[in-house]
Amino acid sequence: MSCNGGSDSKSNENQSESAHPSLILTQQGVKDIKANLGSIPIFDETLAATKKEIDAEIKAGFDVPTPKDYSGGYTHATHKKNYSLMQKAGVLYQILDDETYAKFVKDMLFSYAEQYPTWPAHPKTRSYARGKLFWQCLNDSNWLVYTSQAYDCIYNYLTLEERETLETELFKPFANYISKDNPQFFNRVHNHSTWGNVAVGMIALAMDDDSLLQAALYGLKDIKLAKDMKDNDGGYINPEDGKIGFFANLDEPFSPDGYYTEGPYYQRYAMYPFLIFAQALENKKPELKILEYKDRVLLKGVNALLNLTDADGDFFLLNDSQKGMSYYNSSLVSAVNIAYHFGGNNPELLSIAQKQGEVTLDDAGLAVALGIQQGKAKPFNKKSIELSDGPNGNQGGVGILRSAPMELVFKYTAHGLSHGHYDKLSYALFEDGNEVVQDYGMSRFVNIEQKGGGNYLKENTTWAKQTISHNTIVQNETSQFQGKYDIGSKHHSNGYIFSVAQDNVQVASAKEENAYPGTKLHRTMVIIKDSDYNNPYILDIMRVQTESSNQYDLPFYYLGHIMQTNFEYDKLKTPQILGTSDGYQHLYKEAIATANGKHIKLNWLLNNTFYTYSAVTSNNDEIILARIGANDPEYNLRQEPTLILRKKNTKDAVFASIIESHGTYTPVSEMALNAYSNIKNIEVVYDTSAYTAIKIETKNNTSRVFIISNENNDKEAQHSLNINNKTYTWKGCYVLTEIN
Amino acid sequence: MSCNGGSDSKSNENQSESAHPSLILTQQGVKDIKANLGSIPIFDETLAATKKEIDAEIKAGFDVPTPKDYSGGYTHATHKKNYSLMQKAGVLYQILDDETYAKFVKDMLFSYAEQYPTWPAHPKTRSYARGKLFWQCLNDSNWLVYTSQAYDCIYNYLTLEERETLETELFKPFANYISKDNPQFFNRVHNHSTWGNVAVGMIALAMDDDSLLQAALYGLKDIKLAKDMKDNDGGYINPEDGKIGFFANLDEPFSPDGYYTEGPYYQRYAMYPFLIFAQALENKKPELKILEYKDRVLLKGVNALLNLTDADGDFFLLNDSQKGMSYYNSSLVSAVNIAYHFGGNNPELLSIAQKQGEVTLDDAGLAVALGIQQGKAKPFNKKSIELSDGPNGNQGGVGILRSAPMELVFKYTAHGLSHGHYDKLSYALFEDGNEVVQDYGMSRFVNIEQKGGGNYLKENTTWAKQTISHNTIVQNETSQFQGKYDIGSKHHSNGYIFSVAQDNVQVASAKEENAYPGTKLHRTMVIIKDSDYNNPYILDIMRVQTESSNQYDLPFYYLGHIMQTNFEYDKLKTPQILGTSDGYQHLYKEAIATANGKHIKLNWLLNNTFYTYSAVTSNNDEIILARIGANDPEYNLRQEPTLILRKKNTKDAVFASIIESHGTYTPVSEMALNAYSNIKNIEVVYDTSAYTAIKIETKNNTSRVFIISNENNDKEAQHSLNINNKTYTWKGCYVLTEIN
Ligand SMILES: [Ca+2]
Ligand SMILES: [Ca+2]
Ligand SMILES: [Ca+2]
Ligand SMILES: [Mg+2]
Ligand SMILES: [Mg+2]
Ligand SMILES: [Mg+2]
Ligand SMILES: [Mg+2]
Repeated sequence: MSCNGGSDSKSNENQSESAHPSLILTQQGVKDIKANLGSIPIFDETLAATKKEIDAEIKAGFDVPTPKDYSGGYTHATHKKNYSLMQKAGVLYQILDDETYAKFVKDMLFSYAEQYPTWPAHPKTRSYARGKLFWQCLNDSNWLVYTSQAYDCIYNYLTLEERETLETELFKPFANYISKDNPQFFNRVHNHSTWGNVAVGMIALAMDDDSLLQAALYGLKDIKLAKDMKDNDGGYINPEDGKIGFFANLDEPFSPDGYYTEGPYYQRYAMYPFLIFAQALENKKPELKILEYKDRVLLKGVNALLNLTDADGDFFLLNDSQKGMSYYNSSLVSAVNIAYHFGGNNPELLSIAQKQGEVTLDDAGLAVALGIQQGKAKPFNKKSIELSDGPNGNQGGVGILRSAPMELVFKYTAHGLSHGHYDKLSYALFEDGNEVVQDYGMSRFVNIEQKGGGNYLKENTTWAKQTISHNTIVQNETSQFQGKYDIGSKHHSNGYIFSVAQDNVQVASAKEENAYPGTKLHRTMVIIKDSDYNNPYILDIMRVQTESSNQYDLPFYYLGHIMQTNFEYDKLKTPQILGTSDGYQHLYKEAIATANGKHIKLNWLLNNTFYTYSAVTSNNDEIILARIGANDPEYNLRQEPTLILRKKNTKDAVFASIIESHGTYTPVSEMALNAYSNIKNIEVVYDTSAYTAIKIETKNNTSRVFIISNENNDKEAQHSLNINNKTYTWKGCYVLTEIN
Repeated sequence: MSCNGGSDSKSNENQSESAHPSLILTQQGVKDIKANLGSIPIFDETLAATKKEIDAEIKAGFDVPTPKDYSGGYTHATHKKNYSLMQKAGVLYQILDDETYAKFVKDMLFSYAEQYPTWPAHPKTRSYARGKLFWQCLNDSNWLVYTSQAYDCIYNYLTLEERETLETELFKPFANYISKDNPQFFNRVHNHSTWGNVAVGMIALAMDDDSLLQAALYGLKDIKLAKDMKDNDGGYINPEDGKIGFFANLDEPFSPDGYYTEGPYYQRYAMYPFLIFAQALENKKPELKILEYKDRVLLKGVNALLNLTDADGDFFLLNDSQKGMSYYNSSLVSAVNIAYHFGGNNPELLSIAQKQGEVTLDDAGLAVALGIQQGKAKPFNKKSIELSDGPNGNQGGVGILRSAPMELVFKYTAHGLSHGHYDKLSYALFEDGNEVVQDYGMSRFVNIEQKGGGNYLKENTTWAKQTISHNTIVQNETSQFQGKYDIGSKHHSNGYIFSVAQDNVQVASAKEENAYPGTKLHRTMVIIKDSDYNNPYILDIMRVQTESSNQYDLPFYYLGHIMQTNFEYDKLKTPQILGTSDGYQHLYKEAIATANGKHIKLNWLLNNTFYTYSAVTSNNDEIILARIGANDPEYNLRQEPTLILRKKNTKDAVFASIIESHGTYTPVSEMALNAYSNIKNIEVVYDTSAYTAIKIETKNNTSRVFIISNENNDKEAQHSLNINNKTYTWKGCYVLTEIN
């Protein structure tokens, strides 16, 4: 017992106990769960798996080691494991009423409480905001977000004195360390800060500490940070507009469509704290109506995130992102469960939960399990969709064109904070959930200690962020915005057309006019479905208008093995380095060719599928077959190929090309089916500032002309245009017409 | 009616009709099939799928085009499709009693009969034995093997006159063309000739033509071929010992264990004609007891072939072979069904048939379908196995060591005829059906016309067959046997130990003493299971004894991405070509390092699994990190990596290394588990002509010594050896002992 007045404290205690658990699990929720156990398969299975895991860990015993390692090392992995174990054990205590679990959490918490006050800042000094348990405050915040839930679950199991010890020795100093002691971490708009805000907010709710809650929601007031302070990714720390705290982190990075400006990989990471805190606030401070905030932006965020995945659930690679991250990540399990439970029981979310094969062990997970058990699940139907970027949705966006089995993601967003790439108007193409024309992703092997401690590698800056590593124009071998964050983050591209109502022609078009001052880039991507062929094909029109003569490189990052080209190339005896900076220093030139003004073809094989790239050229355009991997002293890069179409000394230009998935190979029967392109010719038949027209001839003796109005995207405008003695008349900003 | 005596012919006709079908389907078989239809799921499904396919083709109509193309082209593909359609339609006619199918076969046959006599040899001249329908007699033989079955099925549907027309205009000239007119194709021991013999034999059985049958079984007598005549693969055509015909083709390439000397890829291809003809002979000439021949060698061949696959059924890559070929190939469906039906109803074959998901639509397929339906299937349990090579089983062999999830295939065979590689004592390693340390396979894209017409590429000779493209020693940058077929085909390696009774230590050891005159190579591969670790690891000891000083290169073709090495390497600014011939001209040197005499480690990631190669070095050994792809003007090669350990100016040497699969990475949770090797040290602690001993220290603080007796492989011999003041005493040719 503390020395404070006994009876008062006693009554507080009772009041307080009646309110636990109340963050993620509620008392009513626990009752409902217990009533349904044994008849809700997906919940029962998750519970059994969790129990099995925790029982084994309890048997093995835990360790709370003195912090020492970067991610990938033992102390890092152990502290990370510990918070996950505590969170799960807390839940098991509530659902199973078995004090073994509560005791496990309590013992671990006391081990932390004993040591935490003695630990200095983490000995690894790389971070702009070192934690105590981990090398960065970010991971310490992760710890507190999970541990708050564990504390909430065993709150009633602990004596008042025990709680006071934990709160005084561990939780409050911990919350202060990641906020007051590290305002450069806490007082920002950034995914790091979101974790920090939520960590403080969650423990505040668990402890009923209103002053910490205010700090979490609205930031720490009256803190001044140096104006030029940067984080480890080179992002500025000092928010220009003074927006801080959880609400600011909700306002700024999310567009009204729920797109998170850093991209889906970080959105996935950020959604967990956003939603777990929203869930806790919903339960404990319903008067805040947090899920209604900004027109339900958090719920829209879940929908946006699910739409930013390929056919098998992998996130599209926009900005820094590691391949293989998908909606099977546990934070998406939470997100889907919370969105279902608190967001109106959308039955399509249940089918995602079914694929995930697990639910959260709480009120939301129970709702999902009941929904599935009652047969309410419906397929989550991903359609073509445009997601705006920017707090107000007016900073460009992402256009996703879908026409099974192809999915195209076209990027014309704002920069994406410190995780942004210089990749305006780039795209990537997927077939059946496999990348065909890739975005490199990031240069990092997360948590693989062998590779730079699992952290960002220097090649992330020198290669993965650079323009040349993307499927977009590079002018004069220089990255967009000179590769400078300060410049890039001031601008965004603009959507021009997003029109997907017609199944056989879907169009996404966007403009970028700041990446290269004086140069206007306008790219239009079209998915065309020709009923004579199995798969739709992609038409890509990249239009460049400029004041001076430049060199333009348009790389095409196909994945797979070259089968054939329709042009003669000279393979160099040994590869040569393509350039000196802006990512060019990481490319080997393997072969070169000179275009003759006809269209070129690259036919390749990937995953036993035949693809062809057919691109319009001008006479003397250069074709460079290149490969990633130069200036890579530690084999950090993947040695993957690209074809670069280079126009030298050119003012205005149109790059037009078609990508087809036209055939298959079956190794077991050794049968090649439709191994060749169906495109007989592709040609730019008209190009003025007002209109651009591309003619496509296919082998079924059909010709089509696609015309886009370059300056008027009014859907109601009437157009009439004469091309080669034929008059085309149409309404709207584009037309696709079959001719002859 | 022909003008020959009516009644005689009539009686022949009746006799003859009563004997059809009799090759693959029998009259009794057809009755049994009809009686069981609808209650034998796998048969019913195959039948339905076949009916659906053929119905669509009948509706679409067929084409019998004038021959023109190489494989991959239209006429090639169409004639190939035609024989398959006829075979299937014939079967449908028998089972479904629907004359539509018979008429389809008849019409197509008559279209062939009309044109065949007018066709000259195929216009493409690349083959040493041009066909008429196809560019090589081999494919013409394929056609006849299938078409014979179709003819047998519709025999009774045709009038005598129709049969005479077909036999006179088509079948007999066809059989003569691929035999008498092309003895360099027909009179050999080679997989081509097997097809030729069987084609002639099948049509002989269908027509009851005994003289053709004799030619098929025993070859064409009194044919003299030029002694130095070679086929397109460089193989000699003239059989030295005068062995010709089907029986010779059965005697020569199969070992008593059923291993086919060309390797499993060609064994798969050859098994179909062998077994389909055996089945027809079994039905029509049971007195030949063909399946009893050479101690049931054909049935053993099926078992050998199934054992020459990785965990998911892909064939190991020995000699010329294309990746992805597996026991799902249709010829294996036949093989498994025939082996089950005629070979004693081994229930393990039923589980393979279940995986294949189809059966042959004949007596054998019925037996399999009934077996499955009656629940008789048992798992096909692949164990460690040694398969001898050579007609008498004394020309070395293949040792397969299995310890789940790892499978190691170690090659110490004879050369393997014209499809052999210069790869004595090479090996490949698989985990869970995925290649980890690869054999390159062949340089060919079968039936992909874009790549050299789908035929062997020149890189198959200059790269894929060469020693440096394999995981075995290259002396002085020269392939084994100087890369000369004449020399290589005179020799074979010899097995020394194959001992797999103990689960925790399985040993395969073999010697090669002719590849480099004056140099003796002795390689020992051991799979060791340490109960402290999840997966077994592989110990590899390559011992070299020689009379002169040489350079030795031991390449290690790991697949995947380098994570880390424990040695410092210098990445070259741009790759350099490693050498000038014997395959070295196709390797780029990317990085170099010099060994310090300690063991080196290469840690890499493949399929989200962490592997480490730990190899003993001597001071100043060179380590070369290289990549395939130099001198590859048409991108025919896959640009995959290797590590080469090079010893210069060395006489005797021991290369000893360990390969571990020790950890996993999960991209969805970003968790790395056991990312590092468990090997603390590996050392050669003893090496004389009599014994070699390797000490292995693992991180669980265990040390083991593996000792092999190099000159005495007697299983009963007693050994005693003092190493570092410790005496080891054991019985047999090796021992693995835990020390301290
Ligand atoms: Ca993907
Ligand atoms: Ca995918
Ligand atoms: Ca496999
Ligand atoms: Mg990128
Ligand atoms: Mg990007
Ligand atoms: Mg080989
Ligand atoms: Mg090979």
